[in-house]
Amino acid sequence: MTRVLLIQGANMEWLGRRQPDLYGTTSAAELDALLQAHAASREIELEIVYTNLEGEAISRIFQAVRDGVDGLLMNPAGFTYGGRALRDCLLGVGDDLPYIEVHMTNIERRGTTSVTAPAADGVIAGLGIDSYTLGLEALLGVLAKRGRSGET
Amino acid sequence: MTRVLLIQGANMEWLGRRQPDLYGTTSAAELDALLQAHAASREIELEIVYTNLEGEAISRIFQAVRDGVDGLLMNPAGFTYGGRALRDCLLGVGDDLPYIEVHMTNIERRGTTSVTAPAADGVIAGLGIDSYTLGLEALLGVLAKRGRSGET
Amino acid sequence: MTRVLLIQGANMEWLGRRQPDLYGTTSAAELDALLQAHAASREIELEIVYTNLEGEAISRIFQAVRDGVDGLLMNPAGFTYGGRALRDCLLGVGDDLPYIEVHMTNIERRGTTSVTAPAADGVIAGLGIDSYTLGLEALLGVLAKRGRSGET
Amino acid sequence: MTRVLLIQGANMEWLGRRQPDLYGTTSAAELDALLQAHAASREIELEIVYTNLEGEAISRIFQAVRDGVDGLLMNPAGFTYGGRALRDCLLGVGDDLPYIEVHMTNIERRGTTSVTAPAADGVIAGLGIDSYTLGLEALLGVLAKRGRSGET
Amino acid sequence: MTRVLLIQGANMEWLGRRQPDLYGTTSAAELDALLQAHAASREIELEIVYTNLEGEAISRIFQAVRDGVDGLLMNPAGFTYGGRALRDCLLGVGDDLPYIEVHMTNIERRGTTSVTAPAADGVIAGLGIDSYTLGLEALLGVLAKRGRSGET
Amino acid sequence: MTRVLLIQGANMEWLGRRQPDLYGTTSAAELDALLQAHAASREIELEIVYTNLEGEAISRIFQAVRDGVDGLLMNPAGFTYGGRALRDCLLGVGDDLPYIEVHMTNIERRGTTSVTAPAADGVIAGLGIDSYTLGLEALLGVLAKRGRSGET
Amino acid sequence: MTRVLLIQGANMEWLGRRQPDLYGTTSAAELDALLQAHAASREIELEIVYTNLEGEAISRIFQAVRDGVDGLLMNPAGFTYGGRALRDCLLGVGDDLPYIEVHMTNIERRGTTSVTAPAADGVIAGLGIDSYTLGLEALLGVLAKRGRSGET
Amino acid sequence: MTRVLLIQGANMEWLGRRQPDLYGTTSAAELDALLQAHAASREIELEIVYTNLEGEAISRIFQAVRDGVDGLLMNPAGFTYGGRALRDCLLGVGDDLPYIEVHMTNIERRGTTSVTAPAADGVIAGLGIDSYTLGLEALLGVLAKRGRSGET
Amino acid sequence: MTRVLLIQGANMEWLGRRQPDLYGTTSAAELDALLQAHAASREIELEIVYTNLEGEAISRIFQAVRDGVDGLLMNPAGFTYGGRALRDCLLGVGDDLPYIEVHMTNIERRGTTSVTAPAADGVIAGLGIDSYTLGLEALLGVLAKRGRSGET
Amino acid sequence: MTRVLLIQGANMEWLGRRQPDLYGTTSAAELDALLQAHAASREIELEIVYTNLEGEAISRIFQAVRDGVDGLLMNPAGFTYGGRALRDCLLGVGDDLPYIEVHMTNIERRGTTSVTAPAADGVIAGLGIDSYTLGLEALLGVLAKRGRSGET
Amino acid sequence: MTRVLLIQGANMEWLGRRQPDLYGTTSAAELDALLQAHAASREIELEIVYTNLEGEAISRIFQAVRDGVDGLLMNPAGFTYGGRALRDCLLGVGDDLPYIEVHMTNIERRGTTSVTAPAADGVIAGLGIDSYTLGLEALLGVLAKRGRSGET
Amino acid sequence: MTRVLLIQGANMEWLGRRQPDLYGTTSAAELDALLQAHAASREIELEIVYTNLEGEAISRIFQAVRDGVDGLLMNPAGFTYGGRALRDCLLGVGDDLPYIEVHMTNIERRGTTSVTAPAADGVIAGLGIDSYTLGLEALLGVLAKRGRSGET
Repeated sequence: MTRVLLIQGANMEWLGRRQPDLYGTTSAAELDALLQAHAASREIELEIVYTNLEGEAISRIFQAVRDGVDGLLMNPAGFTYGGRALRDCLLGVGDDLPYIEVHMTNIERRGTTSVTAPAADGVIAGLGIDSYTLGLEALLGVLAKRGRSGET
Repeated sequence: MTRVLLIQGANMEWLGRRQPDLYGTTSAAELDALLQAHAASREIELEIVYTNLEGEAISRIFQAVRDGVDGLLMNPAGFTYGGRALRDCLLGVGDDLPYIEVHMTNIERRGTTSVTAPAADGVIAGLGIDSYTLGLEALLGVLAKRGRSGET
Repeated sequence: MTRVLLIQGANMEWLGRRQPDLYGTTSAAELDALLQAHAASREIELEIVYTNLEGEAISRIFQAVRDGVDGLLMNPAGFTYGGRALRDCLLGVGDDLPYIEVHMTNIERRGTTSVTAPAADGVIAGLGIDSYTLGLEALLGVLAKRGRSGET
Repeated sequence: MTRVLLIQGANMEWLGRRQPDLYGTTSAAELDALLQAHAASREIELEIVYTNLEGEAISRIFQAVRDGVDGLLMNPAGFTYGGRALRDCLLGVGDDLPYIEVHMTNIERRGTTSVTAPAADGVIAGLGIDSYTLGLEALLGVLAKRGRSGET
Repeated sequence: MTRVLLIQGANMEWLGRRQPDLYGTTSAAELDALLQAHAASREIELEIVYTNLEGEAISRIFQAVRDGVDGLLMNPAGFTYGGRALRDCLLGVGDDLPYIEVHMTNIERRGTTSVTAPAADGVIAGLGIDSYTLGLEALLGVLAKRGRSGET
Repeated sequence: MTRVLLIQGANMEWLGRRQPDLYGTTSAAELDALLQAHAASREIELEIVYTNLEGEAISRIFQAVRDGVDGLLMNPAGFTYGGRALRDCLLGVGDDLPYIEVHMTNIERRGTTSVTAPAADGVIAGLGIDSYTLGLEALLGVLAKRGRSGET
Repeated sequence: MTRVLLIQGANMEWLGRRQPDLYGTTSAAELDALLQAHAASREIELEIVYTNLEGEAISRIFQAVRDGVDGLLMNPAGFTYGGRALRDCLLGVGDDLPYIEVHMTNIERRGTTSVTAPAADGVIAGLGIDSYTLGLEALLGVLAKRGRSGET
Repeated sequence: MTRVLLIQGANMEWLGRRQPDLYGTTSAAELDALLQAHAASREIELEIVYTNLEGEAISRIFQAVRDGVDGLLMNPAGFTYGGRALRDCLLGVGDDLPYIEVHMTNIERRGTTSVTAPAADGVIAGLGIDSYTLGLEALLGVLAKRGRSGET
Repeated sequence: MTRVLLIQGANMEWLGRRQPDLYGTTSAAELDALLQAHAASREIELEIVYTNLEGEAISRIFQAVRDGVDGLLMNPAGFTYGGRALRDCLLGVGDDLPYIEVHMTNIERRGTTSVTAPAADGVIAGLGIDSYTLGLEALLGVLAKRGRSGET
Repeated sequence: MTRVLLIQGANMEWLGRRQPDLYGTTSAAELDALLQAHAASREIELEIVYTNLEGEAISRIFQAVRDGVDGLLMNPAGFTYGGRALRDCLLGVGDDLPYIEVHMTNIERRGTTSVTAPAADGVIAGLGIDSYTLGLEALLGVLAKRGRSGET
Repeated sequence: MTRVLLIQGANMEWLGRRQPDLYGTTSAAELDALLQAHAASREIELEIVYTNLEGEAISRIFQAVRDGVDGLLMNPAGFTYGGRALRDCLLGVGDDLPYIEVHMTNIERRGTTSVTAPAADGVIAGLGIDSYTLGLEALLGVLAKRGRSGET
Repeated sequence: MTRVLLIQGANMEWLGRRQPDLYGTTSAAELDALLQAHAASREIELEIVYTNLEGEAISRIFQAVRDGVDGLLMNPAGFTYGGRALRDCLLGVGDDLPYIEVHMTNIERRGTTSVTAPAADGVIAGLGIDSYTLGLEALLGVLAKRGRSGET
């Protein structure tokens, strides 16, 4: 099994209710179910964490490295604008935890620059819920290249 | 009864001790008592929350919408400078929770721009403790226009 | 009686016709009647002046200080963007004429910064016509704190 | 007859004397005669106003709408740099008074941006006195498209 | 006959299909017919060139000078933002080829600055298809002033 | 069959030779073979075009819409920095040609902002050659949501 | 006699009352008397004009040239920040009316740049009331160099 | 005994693992032992707190003032970039809690500006672990000057 | 023989006609003859290419590397301002094709920064036609240091 | 006698030769004679120092305070742009040495801001050699107000 | 013995007289005595140099390397703002002369950035005279780590 | 004989020791010998001056004009960043002393802009020691064009 941590950043708990024209009407719970099903089909053990606190996200990431998690998927959401401490954390763990950043919307269309993106191995944006499933595929690709797989 | 949530942002717990030339000598406890008295006279059920954590403020706002609170009064205080995730949260709940932003000082005189103000229905600044009572009046006015009152 | 001068800045004469989605459909004449009624109930002698000329606003403010007017309410409107001479005038009369600035819309939501706001004792924005009545209340509060009342 | 108001902004009274290498030697009086002749040949009733005061220009524009004038031609001249209240006035009257902005010189060659231009239906610049006659033609075109003609 | 070259810059071939709310529904072919008719009535021999390549526009302009063309009309369209080499070309041919720049929309309303405009003798913007016919008139005016006419 | 156009922007012909530490050693020909194989397995008819000329890319995109191509994949490469005419073209064809932008490297890590990205339906960056295959998947997802499939 | 016009810009009527720590306690009337006495001793016929309206200052300057006034002394005061139309007027009259700009305070110490200063023959700042008398001396010097004297 | 609070900001828990070329290989636990030994030799009662949450740091500082702690040593680490609420907190407690800011690296060499530094009594940077011991010495010096010692 | 490619960027075909006060009156043909003569005397086989298309310049550079050309001399001319794709191309071929950039004028005196200059081995500017001959000498010097000569 | 030090900054030794259209043809020696004569008539003991070294100017100013000199006149000339250490020196001696800054040209017309001007009691610019004599007068005025005269 | 050079930059000779609220009342001579005493107790041979000339500071630093001095302590003072040549010199000598930069005040609180700080091994600011003694300690620490001691 | 002055700016005395990866290992003495040999072969009398003082460079340039030196070669080195007084000096002597600026490295690649370059007749950068010999050739070219030769 490949072990992946998915962090949903600030405001993501409100998914399906917040600006549905931007983010769709799928709720957080529905998204979780959908992703767990996809993960199972790809032999991924997926843990999903929602947090509105940047520092909590940092602590969770350090914990994941200590626990030997294989990769990180994160939608920084509300941390996108000012999460520089989070970016330092990601740079710090570096190669120990491959990181794919996902956004449901095309943030560049909305004039936003992500401060955490420079710390990512890859970035996927604008594809709604598909951003998450493509993000999982991208993470598997990165892990495959490094010859690291959770099963071994 | 109209139900209102008042959030006091980062550093507000220090009211009456921090820079008294700017913020006066009324303590946080004294302010609370004063506002509860005013709220009672206007048939407002007022809950007051102090927090130094931006993410906690976000969680409290989402909770308020779930609980059917009628309106939000907030002095973002320390979140004024960089609280962009908080601003997104406020934009997200939008019409579900009318929001009046208050500041005890005239922040524009001090060269500060509030990042959360664009998400407010109204802004009141510079009037010390009166900013809060005028803020409650403003909130009642906004609710009246929408034909929403907590009693019904 | 407390004596208050209300200055309506550039373009306010067009109220009710200009961008009604932003400013509502109440005309200037209707607003005047409404405010005079409110003022009477609060024992305020209110003079209302409309002007499109920044220099005329300056001259009226100096005149008000000479006449012993107690306080100033102003919606700078078209002077909001570039009225730096007006700002200097307000700083010049300073404590001699307490000043509350009002805006019918939340100007920060529209990306505007008021150059006269730093000279105000308080700022109230975004509450439509209520901005004016709350502004009168705020002015009474400021005058009360200073122990200055027009009746004496 | 189509009724058109022409406003000549700050410093235009000095035409023919100020920087003749830029603006030519035609005086303000000569320009007026020339434009009245052109207007007559096109069945336009043309009123020409010179003013150095931005607020006076605003008042004249509001008056024109009240009087049912069909269109506005304006060389903002000295108001080009900072006439934001004028711009708001133009945005306010909007479709009630089609507006063509003219400049005798190509202001972009001189590194100037007009703050009133964004409120115009069309802009014509750099063609000396021809800018005015082409401006009248452009205004007739805009009015024709809207099915509004002064004769009816 | 006066000989005029009209260059339609990048994306103009899509006229009538691209953002019709901005540019109308007239197609490129219809516009060409309309302009040829107008040109014939004014004794102008008009050549129309569409190109998406900035360098091709430059080569055509140099060619026009070699061929003794009298004037240039151009809608830089997609070259408006970054066509600095095109601007240098226009500055280089200078008085040998009078240049009127036209835009169908009022680009200043859309917050755009044209990098080629400073090299123009005149600029006309915001009048839809009329921008082209007024542009031809403006060009005739500039040529008349210089005592250059294609017929001689 | 779904029909997809892939445009490889300026400098991409040099793939495998230019900065191999950034872009890997796979040559352009090898990449083409790899993508054609992937496309075949997904019932995609894929046309691949290499060009160093921004205007040629524009012309190809307009042609694709005329030919009824279903979607566009593009690595703007050298057009990333200044391709504003290309961006306008993409905005112009809009919903007629869904567009996924891909980058082999994480351009944000390199401090670059893509001027064409705001016109994309989705953006995928940083995953080397996987960026292309994931881009094809993302495009299929977008087409599926719109109920448009090339087979019908 | 040499004829000099002195324009006191926006807010100068408040001299002696406005920010006395910056501008001293001499009133406008006292300053006028003092300057008239100095002017008499130097055979200068001095006219002093106070205005809060930029357009009025412009009209007065054009009038002065028509009347053959020899030189202009001006404290732009409130026009210092944004008086670009005034600057254009001064550039327009140019050599016809030598201009010395005076400021009572050292505006550079206060971080202010005067937009009218580039149109001046000389600038004197920071010397309180002496700025005016030194300004008259400087103006006489400029006139002497040009061989222009009012008496002839 | 002098009582000192040491706050280790966001990401410091990862010391010794994160970017060891910048921060060395000493772990957080080893650093704590080393500093407690140094503190004991100087009769300092040292409490060390690690936190990734800015709001928690604020709460700890307010608590320290309430508890009568003598001084604060802090490495803001991840809060260095955007910790403006933390800065306001430090300005608020002001003279009640002398504050020395330390950085293990010379942040100016890395192009970083600390937003909390302006609230410090002193700043020490670039000396690795010695930054902490020198910081304690600096704090003792500041306390000595104020005649405050924890023993009394 | 050493083989050198000389690329003359956008607008260079107009040499001798465009702004002769800046670039002199030597025509492109005369310059070519002059440089071929100089090249012959130094045993250089020189190919000269003029292009107004940035993408064509890129294609020619890639071709030159494939053909084993020894060095590149280029006057980017109109590509100087925005030729970032060209710069990427130059960085891409890097050590495979030494590059000397030449400008006939001192572009820094004219306030211009060349975007391709950072990719050059050397830059020579301001010496008119001598810039080219000195550029050839500089290129020979660079090749000599690398021990690469075309004859071998 | 009043004792005054005049410092002529970098490049002033070249007076009369450097850019005579800006600075006139009076040489440094002639200017010195002229100023000494003026100084004698006003009972000023004037020492004139020319230096191209900013540090030497600083040393001379400190020496002047030690020697009890009454006032400083300085044309910073070449130090105008970057003389921040000189500015600190002037701020340091402050009230001990009143300082009048002079410029022969109106530097604001030339787009220059003086970094030393904020440290001056007064600034005089644009009046050629008269700038110096008016500067001496201004200095006497400042000294008179302070009740300091060198004779006592 | 460890040999240390202390350079006191521009304006430091005025210590104790210049802005005593910022820098205290200790004179330069008193500071020297105090530091020599401290140096003696730590077996440091300390040479102290005061200079207002940046070039002299550069020459002294080069000399120090030639003489085998162990380390450099410097308060750049007036060189803090613009001493870029000094910074280059420090980068040039690099590891041959460890450098600790000291400031008596917390320059970040005063909004100043030091251009020489990026060349320092460590920076200590805001602790008055203690900044120097802590700086000596820091220098000893740096030397100890490198295994370089003057005694050997 | 042609007489040429070569000024080596701040830090150049350290050549061969400072950052040899950038500047090579040739020492200042070796470079001098090499250049004197080259000068002799070209009948140039070359004087070489090294200085770390900007003011000394200025004085030497003025002296060279007085002595009738034919041309100036200078590597501003440490004066490149902030040598504005030096730039003014160069602009001042202007045509009296043709000036070629040389840099051993391609400063634009290093992100540096030279403040003295706008005052140069030509600029040569990036060619190591060859920059100097090519600079001498360029200077001869400039002198030849002006018909000035030292021998006559």
